[in-house]
Amino acid sequence: MCNYAEDEPGEVFTMPSPLILVNLKSYQEGTGSRAHLIANTAQIVANESGVTIGIAPTYIDLHPLCHHFAIPIFAQHVDGSDPGAHTGQITADALKLAGAAGSLINHAERRLTLADIDASVQALRSKKLTAVVCTNNENTSAAAAALSPAYVAIEPPELIGSGVSVSKANPEIIKRSVDAVRRVSSDVKVLTGAGIQSGECVKIAVDLGTDGVLLASSVVKSKEPGVVLRDLVSRL
Amino acid sequence: MCNYAEDEPGEVFTMPSPLILVNLKSYQEGTGSRAHLIANTAQIVANESGVTIGIAPTYIDLHPLCHHFAIPIFAQHVDGSDPGAHTGQITADALKLAGAAGSLINHAERRLTLADIDASVQALRSKKLTAVVCTNNENTSAAAAALSPAYVAIEPPELIGSGVSVSKANPEIIKRSVDAVRRVSSDVKVLTGAGIQSGECVKIAVDLGTDGVLLASSVVKSKEPGVVLRDLVSRL
Amino acid sequence: MCNYAEDEPGEVFTMPSPLILVNLKSYQEGTGSRAHLIANTAQIVANESGVTIGIAPTYIDLHPLCHHFAIPIFAQHVDGSDPGAHTGQITADALKLAGAAGSLINHAERRLTLADIDASVQALRSKKLTAVVCTNNENTSAAAAALSPAYVAIEPPELIGSGVSVSKANPEIIKRSVDAVRRVSSDVKVLTGAGIQSGECVKIAVDLGTDGVLLASSVVKSKEPGVVLRDLVSRL
Amino acid sequence: MCNYAEDEPGEVFTMPSPLILVNLKSYQEGTGSRAHLIANTAQIVANESGVTIGIAPTYIDLHPLCHHFAIPIFAQHVDGSDPGAHTGQITADALKLAGAAGSLINHAERRLTLADIDASVQALRSKKLTAVVCTNNENTSAAAAALSPAYVAIEPPELIGSGVSVSKANPEIIKRSVDAVRRVSSDVKVLTGAGIQSGECVKIAVDLGTDGVLLASSVVKSKEPGVVLRDLVSRL
Repeated sequence: MCNYAEDEPGEVFTMPSPLILVNLKSYQEGTGSRAHLIANTAQIVANESGVTIGIAPTYIDLHPLCHHFAIPIFAQHVDGSDPGAHTGQITADALKLAGAAGSLINHAERRLTLADIDASVQALRSKKLTAVVCTNNENTSAAAAALSPAYVAIEPPELIGSGVSVSKANPEIIKRSVDAVRRVSSDVKVLTGAGIQSGECVKIAVDLGTDGVLLASSVVKSKEPGVVLRDLVSRL
Repeated sequence: MCNYAEDEPGEVFTMPSPLILVNLKSYQEGTGSRAHLIANTAQIVANESGVTIGIAPTYIDLHPLCHHFAIPIFAQHVDGSDPGAHTGQITADALKLAGAAGSLINHAERRLTLADIDASVQALRSKKLTAVVCTNNENTSAAAAALSPAYVAIEPPELIGSGVSVSKANPEIIKRSVDAVRRVSSDVKVLTGAGIQSGECVKIAVDLGTDGVLLASSVVKSKEPGVVLRDLVSRL
Repeated sequence: MCNYAEDEPGEVFTMPSPLILVNLKSYQEGTGSRAHLIANTAQIVANESGVTIGIAPTYIDLHPLCHHFAIPIFAQHVDGSDPGAHTGQITADALKLAGAAGSLINHAERRLTLADIDASVQALRSKKLTAVVCTNNENTSAAAAALSPAYVAIEPPELIGSGVSVSKANPEIIKRSVDAVRRVSSDVKVLTGAGIQSGECVKIAVDLGTDGVLLASSVVKSKEPGVVLRDLVSRL
Repeated sequence: MCNYAEDEPGEVFTMPSPLILVNLKSYQEGTGSRAHLIANTAQIVANESGVTIGIAPTYIDLHPLCHHFAIPIFAQHVDGSDPGAHTGQITADALKLAGAAGSLINHAERRLTLADIDASVQALRSKKLTAVVCTNNENTSAAAAALSPAYVAIEPPELIGSGVSVSKANPEIIKRSVDAVRRVSSDVKVLTGAGIQSGECVKIAVDLGTDGVLLASSVVKSKEPGVVLRDLVSRL
């Protein structure tokens, strides 16, 4: 069962820290059998290192990955609506049924209205699933924290997919975002992302007060995802 | 293999007419094991009657249904983008990989920009998949036909889920939409939907020149979907 | 000059409390000469009563109203972008040039992404204009407060235009929203709306800790807006 | 009165060809007094040359420009809704009241759903205003023509603001789009845009069968808009 969070006493459904969360996006290198390979590698590295590693595949790969692996599997997006007459939507109910651990919400490539972010967070919480709300700066991180998700994941848009790590290029934004989130809620954990590619980036992020990282291309597009994953957890 | 269209000589990838296409939406009664039950029933009725019956489940149920059943399985939405850095999207590539026959596009509950409808249609065609573009009136049906999808599915929004059948309440809009589509392209087939619930509705729709129907709640929410499906094909 | 806020020492650019803010929407009864009539009446009642009354007309009426009246005139929406290659947008720069006092942001009839709400609030602040962020519940009110607008305006969507006053139907949501906003920031003022139609509604709202009300149809669609406006301020 | 189209016998409300339509976007150089200067210059050049020149300013400048100048003034966007409870929208009714000649619809910087494009076109037509639907390629140009606007304006997105003229870089897309529109309707006129900057570009566009051009930065950002406008009409 991949939903680590279900038995926690609290109501926010976080994972053990630190968390390395890998977004497979719609990359060809992260779809179908390649998604299975990355999930399998992630599980091996998680077991070796004791670090929590989650994977967010496409909707289509969600169900098989949840059933084949014990690591937490996330959706890339979830709608806040209840089951019903909604075409082309992903409900929290369907995620729960598929065995998912939670979902990203409001990723830079899938922005939502404030009202919809709130609805998605509440829908996940009502199913005891883990909500990771992505944000673009300090202000929106504080705003997202007010919705009581498990995680806020701050990703400066100009660094996403840039190959330049946020933890090196802009450690101040991480620090200020952690502080901004803490002022609103001490229960909400913080991830950071954008350009994360090595164990050193991860260590800086954790030292700055975050609970882990959200990353994508450096794992998914690597010919050796196992090498990258082992490096990512190496300094924790 | 559920993709009926793949071996056709043309480029538009339609199904044999008439087509009964059942949208499972996000209904609880159409998710998970219930989706399998409906697909199984649809396959039995299709075999009995010789009528093509397609099913459009949630993204998560797409892959297992494609592998378990020979009837055409559709996505409820597809994005026009190539594989890549797109979070929370469904690409035509992923649909092809999953074994889908095609996808709905621009459903009333998931409207797209004109540019995005075009991109989605072209993405499906490039993968030899069947594009069903939903429209709301005669004008937009003609416009959609200009994008050369396999099907235009006209659904007057005020009748969707109403229990009032478009083929009885507004046969004129069906006739005018068929004519409008024909004026733009003789290759594009027409479905109609909204309130379709019986074999009589289907017969009227086909007599008015359509190639079939798009429907949802009357099958999905029925306690006996087999009874409804057998009725739907009974007058063809 | 209608921008009350400009000379305030703080950085949030609020108006004197209480504030009665009338959204003219796209009502025929609030466009063109009718907008002038309502603004003129509002100015008379504001002068008589000493209560601040603001008007939010359509974009087209913004400039003439700003030049003819001394009461604060708001836009109904503002985009966060700088001047540039943006077609069909309203910039804070253009609002400043027109003489506006500020703008509504994220109204229920014009929802924005979280990132865009933040950009719009910051754009207004940089021009010393008053930002009023509309929200739908307690959570999103707290989230909006984290963006440091001048006002958060909480409007339960089910009561908008209902003729049922939020202050009578659901005083608890007002109280909880005021508390939620206060926990995030003591600088952000709170308005409430939805169904407000009498001086009694306004008094309850103010007694519950808000700084005023946001309303529309009960003034705009009245044959005697002066009678309604005088009633609205009568218990303050 | 700037609405050239009103007295035409047909129902599509086009302008005399060729039409030079200048989109002022949200450029600082096209707002307020600068909008007046450009409109005044356009009127002088239109009178000198006999060529129809239209201007599309921001919403706020729409009303004063309509009243000061006899050339056709367009909105940059229009919503399809009737007057009513719509916050932050621009109705065709409000445009008519302001004296506008028509509106751009679905500009690359303000894309709409297909259903909304249709609603906007019909709203303009019902008020005898000129609809200019922007499109990105041959397919969407044909689709837009099926909605019976006065004009389809094809602008390849990769050339917008590029300084590379569509009429030189990609004359084939203009020719194919004109043909595609003609196949759907012989009443709909075609404009082309993206990178248009000289009389030679305009001449090529007209020689390829279009009824004029849509352009922006080369006029708006010029220090001498009169020089640019005189050049644009010089080869007609």
